[in-house]
Order: sequence, then C-alpha cells, then structure tokens
Amino acid sequence: MSLLVVGSVGYDTIITPQTTGKDLLGGSATYFAISAGYYSSVTLIGVVGEDFSPEDEALLVRRGVDISGLERVAGKTFRWTGKYGTEDVNLRDTLDLQLNVFDEFSPVLSPEQRRADYLFLANIDPEQQLKTLAQMESRPKLVAADTISIWIETRRRRLTDVLKSVDVVFMDEGEVRAFGRELNLVRAARAILDLGPVAVVAKRGEHGVLMVQRDSMFAAPAFALDSVVDPTGAGDSFAGGFMGYLAETGELSSENLRRAAVVGTVMGSFTVQALSVERLASLTRGEVEERLRGYVELTRFEGLESSEDLPWRKMASVI
Amino acid sequence: MSLLVVGSVGYDTIITPQTTGKDLLGGSATYFAISAGYYSSVTLIGVVGEDFSPEDEALLVRRGVDISGLERVAGKTFRWTGKYGTEDVNLRDTLDLQLNVFDEFSPVLSPEQRRADYLFLANIDPEQQLKTLAQMESRPKLVAADTISIWIETRRRRLTDVLKSVDVVFMDEGEVRAFGRELNLVRAARAILDLGPVAVVAKRGEHGVLMVQRDSMFAAPAFALDSVVDPTGAGDSFAGGFMGYLAETGELSSENLRRAAVVGTVMGSFTVQALSVERLASLTRGEVEERLRGYVELTRFEGLESSEDLPWRKMASVI
Repeated sequence: MSLLVVGSVGYDTIITPQTTGKDLLGGSATYFAISAGYYSSVTLIGVVGEDFSPEDEALLVRRGVDISGLERVAGKTFRWTGKYGTEDVNLRDTLDLQLNVFDEFSPVLSPEQRRADYLFLANIDPEQQLKTLAQMESRPKLVAADTISIWIETRRRRLTDVLKSVDVVFMDEGEVRAFGRELNLVRAARAILDLGPVAVVAKRGEHGVLMVQRDSMFAAPAFALDSVVDPTGAGDSFAGGFMGYLAETGELSSENLRRAAVVGTVMGSFTVQALSVERLASLTRGEVEERLRGYVELTRFEGLESSEDLPWRKMASVI
Repeated sequence: MSLLVVGSVGYDTIITPQTTGKDLLGGSATYFAISAGYYSSVTLIGVVGEDFSPEDEALLVRRGVDISGLERVAGKTFRWTGKYGTEDVNLRDTLDLQLNVFDEFSPVLSPEQRRADYLFLANIDPEQQLKTLAQMESRPKLVAADTISIWIETRRRRLTDVLKSVDVVFMDEGEVRAFGRELNLVRAARAILDLGPVAVVAKRGEHGVLMVQRDSMFAAPAFALDSVVDPTGAGDSFAGGFMGYLAETGELSSENLRRAAVVGTVMGSFTVQALSVERLASLTRGEVEERLRGYVELTRFEGLESSEDLPWRKMASVI
C-alpha cells in the first residue's frame, strides 16, 4: 500500500553528554521514511535547500524512499541544534533553530500522491498539515499526525482541526497532557479521542508508549538498552515503523495496532544507538527479527492468566 | 512460608494537587505488610510511639499482619509530610520529617523471627538493615532490600555491605543511577548485580519497573489508571506483592520473579487510588484477579513471535 509522509528534512547538530555531531542528516520525515521503508513503499514530501548533499539524497534513495516530492529550492536547508541533559537523557534543550527554506514550505502533492492510502503528517505547522489533507483526492485508509509543544501553545485551534481529521495521534506524553489540559495521561488522551481519532499514542521516551483507544489500552515499554547515544528521531522512527507495518499489513484492528506499536518500538530502539540515521539506515531483516525476539522476551510473563493462578492467603481473622 | 519485614510505621501528611490528608497511617513496613499479607503470612518489625492509635493497630491485625514485633515505646511515632507536584505526580518534596521514636530504633528479632524464610529490609538506615541480617539464625531463602537517596549519599559503604548480602534490590530508577554512578539504567543496575544480588528492580513510578538480572531483563509497565490520588506507598506495596507472592509460591526462578513483579505492579496500582492504605487494605480476591486480567490485557500482543510474522519489503535498489 502507498504511504505518504509530509515533514521536515534537515541538518541537526547534536550535543550529548558523551558525544557531539555537526550537520547530521535529520528531520522528522527523514527518520520516518527510512524506518517505514523497511516495510512499505514510502513517498516523502518536503523541502531542502541548495546545501542538501547529494550523499544524503542518495542515502534516501538507497533506502527505497521515493523523493520525487522532495523539493529543492534556493536557500539553506532546515537546521536544528539540540543538547541532551546529563541527568535525564529524555530532556533536551533547543540551542538553535533555523527554519530556512522550511519557513516558506507549502506541500504540493502530485495526482498520484493525492491518492495515497496511508498518510503521516509529521510535526509541522498544523496549517501545512491541513493543506496536505485538503489535497487528498479521497480519504486515505488511515491518517496519522504528530505535533510538538509550540503548535499546542500557538496554533491550538488549527491543531484541533487536524486532530478532528485524523485516525491516529502521536504525541509526547507531556504534549498529550498539555493538549488535553489534564495531568492524568489516560484522561488527557481520552479528551483527544473525543475529537475523533481511534488511537492516541503517548510517547514516553525511554519508558515506551501508552496507546489509548476508546475500549482498550496498550502499554509497550521501550526496548531496554545498555547504550543510548542520541535519542533524536526515536519518536519519528517509531511512527515510521508503526505506519510502515500498518501500510504493509493493511489491517486496522486494535490487535494490529498493537503489533504496529511493537514494531515501531523496535525501530526507535535502533535509532537511539547512534547519531543521526547511522544505525537506522543500515538494518538487516535479521537484526530487526532478533530485536523483536528480544522484545518478546523482555515483556513476556506467563502463568497469571487464569483466576486459579493467583495464590491467595486464607485469613481466619479477616472478614 | 514465613515473611519478615523490618521498616517504618508512621503517620503521613500528604498534599497533592487534588487533596490533602493529615496524620494518615503510612510507613514502608505498613504498606509492605498489608500488601504481602494477601498472599503470605507476614511479620512486621518496627516501632511506634504512645500516640499510635488502637484503630491503626487493629487494622494491621485485621489484615493478618503479625505485629508481635512492633514495639511501642515512650515518645511520638515517626511522621512525614510530603507534597506532590502539579506538573509531575512522580515528583515530591519532603516538607517535614520527624523521626521521633524511629531515631533510636534498633530491631530485635525473636528466636522464631530469626528463622524467617523470606526477609524484606525496607528503606531504613543500612546500619539497621545490617543489624537485622546479623540476627538471622540461618540465611533466609531470599532477602530483599530497598533504600532511599539519603543513604546512597551518606551511608554508601554500609549500603554497599547490605547490597552484597541480599538477593533482590528494589530502588527508584534515579537511585539505581545514583548508586551505580551511571546514567544508563541497565549498566547502573548491572553495577549493583556485580555486588551479588540476582535481581535489581528499578522502580519507575507511573512508568512501571525494569527488573535486571544477569542473563535477562523484564520490563513491566505500570497499570494505566484514569485517576491517581496519592502515589505514597506504591513502591512498598509493589515490594509487598512481589515478596508475598514469592513467599507463597516458594519458587525463585526467573519466570517466577517475573510473575512476582506483575503481582507487585497490580498491588501498587491499588495503593495510588486513594490516600494512605484506604484502598490497599480493603481488597478482595475478585478485585485483584480482575485487575490482573486487566494487566494481561494492557500488555499483551500476539502474532510477532516468529520470523515469518514480520513483513519486510523487497527493495531492488537496496543492497
């Protein structure tokens, strides 16, 4: 099935307690497309400047990403500089942000792209997300969207319009709370479900994800790693694995959304093991299968399924 | 099997964004013993002052806790006042701490107590934990210990002696990192395993637990709740369910430790639904079974166990 992603392609400068990397290939659409590309064909809509390197373009092509919708215009590519804390690797500061050519970006879809079956609106301005949606010839089988704090603070109304039009919402847990205006994550996610989506996936960094649906919830812890180099792009790699798996399997049941969340979790776990897309872009099927087995092992427990499995003390003195 | 806990029994004043409670029954040994008491017989070693109410004593007895080792001495009972944040319910400030009779506490075990099969050393001064261990007539089948930041900062050497002598260590994830002197949780936990324990259970509050053993890891997310009233005692209730389950089933395999972690998670989830032990102390077997079923449902996924389950895109252009 065809999968379309609209989002940023850019260069990141990353400072972590252990390492620093300058002008590394990044951007939400980049991580998403490379991750999704292992499962389904994927088309990327975005914009880069004259400084976007032929090597990075070649990398996307080599990963099977259709970049016919990646515009190249005069000016510089989107750039971001982020620093991760020494205390908590989940916390990061933006040291510098240059929208550059992304500032004027307005997605334009080709006739074929307008008929995509699966659509992912990465964390760009809600106005651009709505512009993309408006171009779709028919309603895709599934539309998912991500967002970031800045749009919750400055574009709440337009973001609400986006959320009313999509099926799956990906947000960091703090963003779910902020948008839902609720400290309790489950209630905050339900406030978003009330707008229309069938699932809210709250991303909790190294703690995994909680997927909230109307009648069920699924908690998937993160894959536990003894080395995390750079968390950048983990959420977008998660979304890529999630959407790529759904687009390939074509089934939108709650059961399959759970499997998609597990595949997404596994994909995100590779991304954080190296700077940029270094690890994510070089995966073999065997490596992903092995980690998936590791994930099943990390989370499984048996022997508590039936009532008889639970020991219970007989207490004469207790009513 | 006999289970012994040495720890605090006290009165808490709790301030949360939603509610406030004054002089509520609390203390690590209290939560632990009530939780464990649903599964196995449990004996509590601790101390209270003259102000400890007969109603609270009766509650412990009614819950099947053997309080023959709960000393009553002249003076006031241990008191703690804590405030939970409006932004993050996992963060709390200690507003007031009065050790009172607990300051002079030195555990003294009866001949029978010295033969306990299972022992839990709650988060008291490592010196008192070691004094308890020294009194054991024979090595218990399993010894577990908890601790808190203050002992990591001020009693590191004695705490190291404790950790060298126990089988299972419970700590908040920040404490595991602080003790292990490692930002990465898995590596920090392994540094503790190097001292001797077979399992380190890193407690992550509303994100669940990560149990690290030499050859395996188990990640158990927390039970997702749409209402959390007061997180106080969740960790001790977890430990109580964990140890009570082990003491009753008597099996120390890695498989059974996983089940114990799930039972502990479920017990902790009840504690946070009300102030003090209000919810924890009034459970029926039916309620625990129902939540256990809910937990299996929250965490289960199927259809990704074998290699053939993973779709993988054939990419002609990719090496």
